[in-house]
Amino acid sequence: MGGYENGDSPAAVAGEDGVVLGVDGGTTNTVCVCLPAAMPPPESPAAVPILARAVAGCSNRNSVGESTALETLEQVMTQALTMANTDRSAVRAVCLAVSGVNHPSDQQRMLEWIGSLFPGNAKFYVENDAVAALASGTMGKLHGCVLIAGTGSIAYGVTEDGKVARAAGAGPVLGDWGSGYGIAAQALTAVIKAHDGRGPQTSLTGDILEKLELSSPDEIIGWTYADPSWARIAALVPVVVSSAEDGDEVANKILHDSVQELADTVIAVVRRLRLCGEDEKDKFPLVLVGGVLEGNKKWDISGEVIKCISKVFPGTVPIWPEVCMFVTMPF
Amino acid sequence: MGGYENGDSPAAVAGEDGVVLGVDGGTTNTVCVCLPAAMPPPESPAAVPILARAVAGCSNRNSVGESTALETLEQVMTQALTMANTDRSAVRAVCLAVSGVNHPSDQQRMLEWIGSLFPGNAKFYVENDAVAALASGTMGKLHGCVLIAGTGSIAYGVTEDGKVARAAGAGPVLGDWGSGYGIAAQALTAVIKAHDGRGPQTSLTGDILEKLELSSPDEIIGWTYADPSWARIAALVPVVVSSAEDGDEVANKILHDSVQELADTVIAVVRRLRLCGEDEKDKFPLVLVGGVLEGNKKWDISGEVIKCISKVFPGTVPIWPEVCMFVTMPF
Repeated sequence: MGGYENGDSPAAVAGEDGVVLGVDGGTTNTVCVCLPAAMPPPESPAAVPILARAVAGCSNRNSVGESTALETLEQVMTQALTMANTDRSAVRAVCLAVSGVNHPSDQQRMLEWIGSLFPGNAKFYVENDAVAALASGTMGKLHGCVLIAGTGSIAYGVTEDGKVARAAGAGPVLGDWGSGYGIAAQALTAVIKAHDGRGPQTSLTGDILEKLELSSPDEIIGWTYADPSWARIAALVPVVVSSAEDGDEVANKILHDSVQELADTVIAVVRRLRLCGEDEKDKFPLVLVGGVLEGNKKWDISGEVIKCISKVFPGTVPIWPEVCMFVTMPF
Repeated sequence: MGGYENGDSPAAVAGEDGVVLGVDGGTTNTVCVCLPAAMPPPESPAAVPILARAVAGCSNRNSVGESTALETLEQVMTQALTMANTDRSAVRAVCLAVSGVNHPSDQQRMLEWIGSLFPGNAKFYVENDAVAALASGTMGKLHGCVLIAGTGSIAYGVTEDGKVARAAGAGPVLGDWGSGYGIAAQALTAVIKAHDGRGPQTSLTGDILEKLELSSPDEIIGWTYADPSWARIAALVPVVVSSAEDGDEVANKILHDSVQELADTVIAVVRRLRLCGEDEKDKFPLVLVGGVLEGNKKWDISGEVIKCISKVFPGTVPIWPEVCMFVTMPF
């Protein structure tokens, strides 16, 4: 991560040219970076001169409601400006890349809100967080496809000539079963079904009860609805992965189904945009981000997703962003 | 519905013996009836001398939160007492049969709450609403199995010697896919998938957009999360049934899958309690209640569920309660 920890004064770096704010708003965490407005295009992500970086909680309005989401966004921007020894008057541009922005009306409402926070001549951009995630893997060039699988999941693609398409990103009610939330909800359901006689026994029961410090599957119902945060459910993903690695068949099935869901999401976007060319064999970048797709696990979700997609599109070029605004999932 | 609409004075009927309150708390509606405490066992449901009957909204704490649920319960009981020209001092017993009561700790907390509302010597009973539903079909005898499929779904069974078992009733996060909520959520998901290229085209798209007065599937995401009420989603069930009746394959698959889920729920309970005897051929009553299982549709969900269950347990005796505290679903 670039930064000005010692010696340089952030205020001096921001100077008269002012600053820009970049916000990556996710369903688990929200990150705001403050950069000098006068900045040549960096040669690598590590070379980006970050003045300050602040972190807050969920800013997906569909998960926590609009007012909480906007409060979180305002708070994280204020904190970044304070850390950079500057204030709102220095802001020349803000890019909000926020999960839960799904429709032009969401975008419009957020543009009006951000405009009211920074009166003056600043420029504002509002996008789904998938746009920032794609840019983080392609050094800013908006071309290719990105798959995010953190608490939520979405695939988002852009063609060379600017056509865009997306799939999933619709939240837990609307079938994002490959997301961290989806994986964990399926695991909790499997425990309930094993308990009431509808499903096979699974080591998920003991593993999840231990993690949640509950004594019986009956208590899972109360635990689940005590707090509607999606991230709290998604935080159970490592338990599912670990049960699967230990050979539990139910956990393995959940992960395999989720891999297929995630692959299907990418395949739908790539096909609609013809990112793979007419013969479906052209090369295209596929950026992978989010806690579910992080590596270093024996059960390699990310690798399995690539395998599924590559069977359909052999030109898939996977990219795990070197440095990303994204913060690590809570698992 | 029995009652004292003219002539008799409810206060005179309640007399010095006081009244009892019966509350059926569902995820869509909550009904409270006020009865005279001194009452011989009725010969038929229609002969129950109901002094008053009040209706309020959802009292499932898992759907609307504990404080809203308790407010609704208090409100509906107060209204029933007012309608019966009496007050809390006349109450000798209260039976709360409320969805969302899943664990002894839920029961204990609610017993303490109801005790604080009616100080004195009144008796209190707190159960899951499935218990009231079973009794409504068996003239009060707690024996057999009940399947509720309204906004939520649950199967609950009791043996002659008082053993109980339940399955499902765990809410939308935990896989109640046969419930009204589950059916509607699957339909909304199918529309999203058809729109983003992950699923087949379906007439559900046009039918649901028309019903919700939306112009594009993108808008469904915002609509879904704008209000977390489960009943609001479940109210789309008639659209799914109607699309299926018109031959839509996606809608038909959703209904067939839900029939299987509901049948599996009953089968799990009946098998655990051996309600079907050792050879799985004994007769047992199966009470069916809730909007999803109401008849008079071309696509007969209730009939299909019975067909599935009867293949496994030929002794299944289906009962649709003649008079039930339950109110009709919003569809």
